[in-house]
Amino acid sequence: MQFSESLFAKHMAPISGSAIRDIFKLLGKPGMISFAGGNPSNQALEPEVIAPIAKEVIETVGAPILQYGATEGFIPLKGSIHAFLKEEGIDCKEEEILPTGGSTQGMDLLLKALIDPGDVVLVEDPTFLGALQAINTYHAKIVPVKSDERGVIPEALEEAMKKYRPKLAYIIPTFQNPTGTTLSIERRRRIAELAGEYGVIVAEDDPYRDLRYTGEALPTIKSFDKDGWVVYLSSFSKLISPGMRVGAMVISFPKLMRKCVIGKQSSDLHCPLITQAIVDSYLRKGLLRPHIERITKGYRAQMNAMLEGFKAFPEGTKLNAPEGGLFVWAELPEHVNTLTLLTKAVDAGVAYVPGTHFYAEGGHLNTIRLNFSNSPVDKIYEGMEKLSKVIKENM
Amino acid sequence: MQFSESLFAKHMAPISGSAIRDIFKLLGKPGMISFAGGNPSNQALEPEVIAPIAKEVIETVGAPILQYGATEGFIPLKGSIHAFLKEEGIDCKEEEILPTGGSTQGMDLLLKALIDPGDVVLVEDPTFLGALQAINTYHAKIVPVKSDERGVIPEALEEAMKKYRPKLAYIIPTFQNPTGTTLSIERRRRIAELAGEYGVIVAEDDPYRDLRYTGEALPTIKSFDKDGWVVYLSSFSKLISPGMRVGAMVISFPKLMRKCVIGKQSSDLHCPLITQAIVDSYLRKGLLRPHIERITKGYRAQMNAMLEGFKAFPEGTKLNAPEGGLFVWAELPEHVNTLTLLTKAVDAGVAYVPGTHFYAEGGHLNTIRLNFSNSPVDKIYEGMEKLSKVIKENM
Repeated sequence: MQFSESLFAKHMAPISGSAIRDIFKLLGKPGMISFAGGNPSNQALEPEVIAPIAKEVIETVGAPILQYGATEGFIPLKGSIHAFLKEEGIDCKEEEILPTGGSTQGMDLLLKALIDPGDVVLVEDPTFLGALQAINTYHAKIVPVKSDERGVIPEALEEAMKKYRPKLAYIIPTFQNPTGTTLSIERRRRIAELAGEYGVIVAEDDPYRDLRYTGEALPTIKSFDKDGWVVYLSSFSKLISPGMRVGAMVISFPKLMRKCVIGKQSSDLHCPLITQAIVDSYLRKGLLRPHIERITKGYRAQMNAMLEGFKAFPEGTKLNAPEGGLFVWAELPEHVNTLTLLTKAVDAGVAYVPGTHFYAEGGHLNTIRLNFSNSPVDKIYEGMEKLSKVIKENM
Repeated sequence: MQFSESLFAKHMAPISGSAIRDIFKLLGKPGMISFAGGNPSNQALEPEVIAPIAKEVIETVGAPILQYGATEGFIPLKGSIHAFLKEEGIDCKEEEILPTGGSTQGMDLLLKALIDPGDVVLVEDPTFLGALQAINTYHAKIVPVKSDERGVIPEALEEAMKKYRPKLAYIIPTFQNPTGTTLSIERRRRIAELAGEYGVIVAEDDPYRDLRYTGEALPTIKSFDKDGWVVYLSSFSKLISPGMRVGAMVISFPKLMRKCVIGKQSSDLHCPLITQAIVDSYLRKGLLRPHIERITKGYRAQMNAMLEGFKAFPEGTKLNAPEGGLFVWAELPEHVNTLTLLTKAVDAGVAYVPGTHFYAEGGHLNTIRLNFSNSPVDKIYEGMEKLSKVIKENM
């Protein structure tokens, strides 16, 4: 018999993969300046530090590190994540922590636990493309909620909660992907209240939190959560290494934790013990805070270079200057189409992600997301110059 | 608002987690002899070999090993798995190989790609508990297919394919979990034909294949697959380390590969690069075959000790003596109930898994699965003596 696409699960049929990951395939060209990815800088990665730690943890733990582990996570890591989160202002119990394969897996497990086809998930508008894809995988109905320069608007969120009775709302509160926006403290408090009032799980995805280059850290939404409706998604991808795939969820409802653990049992049984132990050791050695201090210095310079590069952009460009994270977001003059412009930009040697990909309902063709963490300062100047030229030539 | 279970996805509501993993929690008692798990022996794990390899691969690859990787897998590993599979008689292309977090994740990705609620999945009767749980997670209808001492019966499989129009059949062809049975060569050939005739994806889960202690290796079902309907699930969990969570799927239909890659994008983005690189290096250094030779010697002695221990069991015990793998399966006299007996056995200091857990429809209360890989020979003798005593005392 011939293979036919009718064999696919209905919810998977329309999903064609991440547009961003396909853009990545264009980037092989030598000399390409890429503002497209969301990778940390290679300069922020420390193979020379991680290599001896890897050897050490395997030797120290011995055979059990190669044996089956608990789905609930490597116990020492749960302890060190607990201490890390406490510093971040999250006062949870160790048994509320579930190590995951990045915060990607955290969101996947929540969806697996909660979503029946047709259930509603609220998202910011725009939001992280990977989350949109994950939600689609579970055939949920995505309802975007209006956001502005202080993040998602609580009144709009409440209205959507009333109208759609969603099970889940997905929010990136700090240096949001793609907009770089940080949710204000009043809104954080209000969203925690709304979650409890309406009985909606709020997935607070906070991977950029510690990449702050200016201003003061804000308390997490989770820190205002009295009843347990906020699930916090933490990740070491942007701080230590994305390739190790180590993150954690904080889940306060024991029954929800149990369902996520069961979901993880059949997803991958447990996270590899070696990578869990490496992150644990890295945290226990106190390496994280000085490392963050070092990398934020570099990122700050890169961000400032990019912001400066915008000066050459056409009049009418609205820039969202963030206080941290990895991205700058802009609205170009209304008639610019960043989607059709991409090929020309790539031909000119510079790549980005068209902003439309981050909108659940598309549109917003004049928006653009630019990543600055993955290019050195001189390349950022060069790339911004090239990009502004391509834009101007096509106006 | 109070958290209520009505929030859970309907398909997750009835799933309460792996009975086996709960049994594990009973095993902390000092001196307990456990025939319950499916762990490789700690003696078969080589932290002293893996530790320097871990350091070496991180130093050699450098920063990119800590960076984001491709969902499709670490390219060198795809090469070394390709060579490994060729030795196993599977002649596929490298692009047909997808590294996964154990074969557990392979099955999960297949289910994610294919299953709508209510779709039928055929399984052997009995079969691996973890697979039953994973299938339930996707709210599929499980139809068990009659199996005998030569594995699943092709006529019964064909009848079920005709009657239920399943999307997927899950088969463990070699040293099956739980029964230890090996599917005969004629049946392997016939099952590959049936898959193509009826357009059913056959997931061939083959993690025990190289743990053979007697007899000759048989060709995989996949090696008889002309049209691509067989998806081969390979795993290094039983050969190198379960804790590293490295396995691979071989998927011949490019469209199905694409859907599994998309599913993996939102499951965990990619497998950690460090663990992929360790397994790659281990394979390239030619360490696997001598290691298999060494560990099968130990396992053979353990299996023989367990088989000998059965001599003390009550008359009427039907033993399934396997040619390899990690388990011995037995039918005790009809009125013995291994489920209720478990507490008494644990009190006496010996644990096992009641066979009923492996039957999709329950029953078969007199069956029992015993693992021999995780206890030294003297403990196996001692445990089998204790167990036979408990059984006899309760007849």
